[in-house]
Amino acid sequence: MEVVIGIDIGGTNTKIGVVDRKANILAQGRVKTAEYKKAEDFVEVVHAEIQLLLKSAGSVELRGIGIGAPNGNYYKGTIEHAPNLNWKGIVPLVNLFKKHYSVPVVLTNDANAAALGEMIYGGARGMKNFIILTLGTGLGSGIVINGELVYGHTGFAGEMGHLTMEPFGRECGCGRQGCLETYVSATGIVKTVQELFAEKREPSPLRKVSADALTSKMIAEAAEKGDPIALEAFDRTAEMLATAINNAAVFCSPEAVFLFGGLAQAGYLLFDPLNRYVDETILRYYRKTMKIIPSSLKEADAAILGSSALAWKELG
Amino acid sequence: MEVVIGIDIGGTNTKIGVVDRKANILAQGRVKTAEYKKAEDFVEVVHAEIQLLLKSAGSVELRGIGIGAPNGNYYKGTIEHAPNLNWKGIVPLVNLFKKHYSVPVVLTNDANAAALGEMIYGGARGMKNFIILTLGTGLGSGIVINGELVYGHTGFAGEMGHLTMEPFGRECGCGRQGCLETYVSATGIVKTVQELFAEKREPSPLRKVSADALTSKMIAEAAEKGDPIALEAFDRTAEMLATAINNAAVFCSPEAVFLFGGLAQAGYLLFDPLNRYVDETILRYYRKTMKIIPSSLKEADAAILGSSALAWKELG
Repeated sequence: MEVVIGIDIGGTNTKIGVVDRKANILAQGRVKTAEYKKAEDFVEVVHAEIQLLLKSAGSVELRGIGIGAPNGNYYKGTIEHAPNLNWKGIVPLVNLFKKHYSVPVVLTNDANAAALGEMIYGGARGMKNFIILTLGTGLGSGIVINGELVYGHTGFAGEMGHLTMEPFGRECGCGRQGCLETYVSATGIVKTVQELFAEKREPSPLRKVSADALTSKMIAEAAEKGDPIALEAFDRTAEMLATAINNAAVFCSPEAVFLFGGLAQAGYLLFDPLNRYVDETILRYYRKTMKIIPSSLKEADAAILGSSALAWKELG
Repeated sequence: MEVVIGIDIGGTNTKIGVVDRKANILAQGRVKTAEYKKAEDFVEVVHAEIQLLLKSAGSVELRGIGIGAPNGNYYKGTIEHAPNLNWKGIVPLVNLFKKHYSVPVVLTNDANAAALGEMIYGGARGMKNFIILTLGTGLGSGIVINGELVYGHTGFAGEMGHLTMEPFGRECGCGRQGCLETYVSATGIVKTVQELFAEKREPSPLRKVSADALTSKMIAEAAEKGDPIALEAFDRTAEMLATAINNAAVFCSPEAVFLFGGLAQAGYLLFDPLNRYVDETILRYYRKTMKIIPSSLKEADAAILGSSALAWKELG
């Protein structure tokens, strides 16, 4: 059976899976990314793990390797200046793998891989124009137009987390201010609750939690129980995200926007106000033409499926 | 010789040209759009004009017809709810032309046509990823990604004039508030000067002109002479446009952004502060990867060349 290897490189762990064309993960393993100070050593260990996984998957034929990594550049096969990885500067990751493999090895960032996962295995099958937003610690995005992932001139297109929403707004890790991800992400909603503590007089059980300990999960739980501060935080998050999505519509008029990750799992708490704000403020040409829906990929499998989809897409 | 017809439909005039593959306009004419209450009558008159032009062009073989029109929909061949045309509702313009012609007839909006003109005849030759912004009464945009114009799911993608820059900002003709074109356009800069009259104490010759009579050309002339209000208006226009362009970079990381139309003709008055703000605020991945340059098409020919490029592109 033909298979590809899907590799998802995170700051702490790297997930590796053997995947067939039908999204079955035949074998999977893990490597601790953070333990390797040099990318060369990391690649050797991942290579050894791949050999073990291929053996355990049985009688398979390896066709390609897809890698999702922070700051991954599709054109150059490099990871460039990724703040959450040990390897500084520009790492020629694809070339390091090519020492061991003669099949195609392709690399992109994790959100682009998620978009391809959605397109090949998930809810975007058959769609030519859609966007996926991954709402985690930050906000990642993968944009598909005319059936192709948008890499842009540099290979780094699709960074909607860094849309400037408020030129003099919250400080962002990128060195600029008011980026979308400082508002709409697991960390963004925590900041919004802290703002609301200052603005509002209402009591809230969240006020008993220290700023450093507060999480988006606690906010979702409080909102479920009707806490007005938590509900208002979801409302503001949704309002900001609606503006960004409606601006995306003005660019590329997608058929759907998929939301993935922790914040998206808050379900109606996010989707209800989001759909209301989008409907209220979208340019009339696009009204009722664009669905906003949760990703259909399971959180646990999505990373490996996304990177394997990158490999299948490359193989055509 | 093989030729196409390029038609540019404006609210007042429609320009028609016979164009070869090398951007030579072999013959051209005009029809007064606003005189025709019914689209059917308009198409008959344009058809008659095309016949005359083809005769005057000599020995040519007609291969296709490209039409640029406000609110033109590429997929459906329709003009939909165009506020500046007499014809209300949905006009099946391509079908009306097809009664007379068996060659391909294609339609899109004027800014998309301008993008194709730039790609086939102008400064974007060889580029796969670029944007053109047409700065006229409003702000139109045409976006090319992976070598293809972005029409989106609806056929109405590429409306950057309606990016929401200030959710509670200036009223826009679209019924919403704070759209980019209410700030960055010939009419937008006039509004900015009016705001500056209120904010600032500096004298300015522009204060002697009534609000209704003030034009972007007068503002450019005053700025050339060093008028501080006019210079500040260009600076604010450039700052807002820089935010929009940097947000476009985050989407699709273009190789170039072309500016076309009246405001772009202000030259260094716009481009100098614009390049400065873009450099200051662009996400670091894109720094120095994106040129911001004037369109290389002559204002007088651009509309006909754009629509003819649409036809050539369709013919492949």
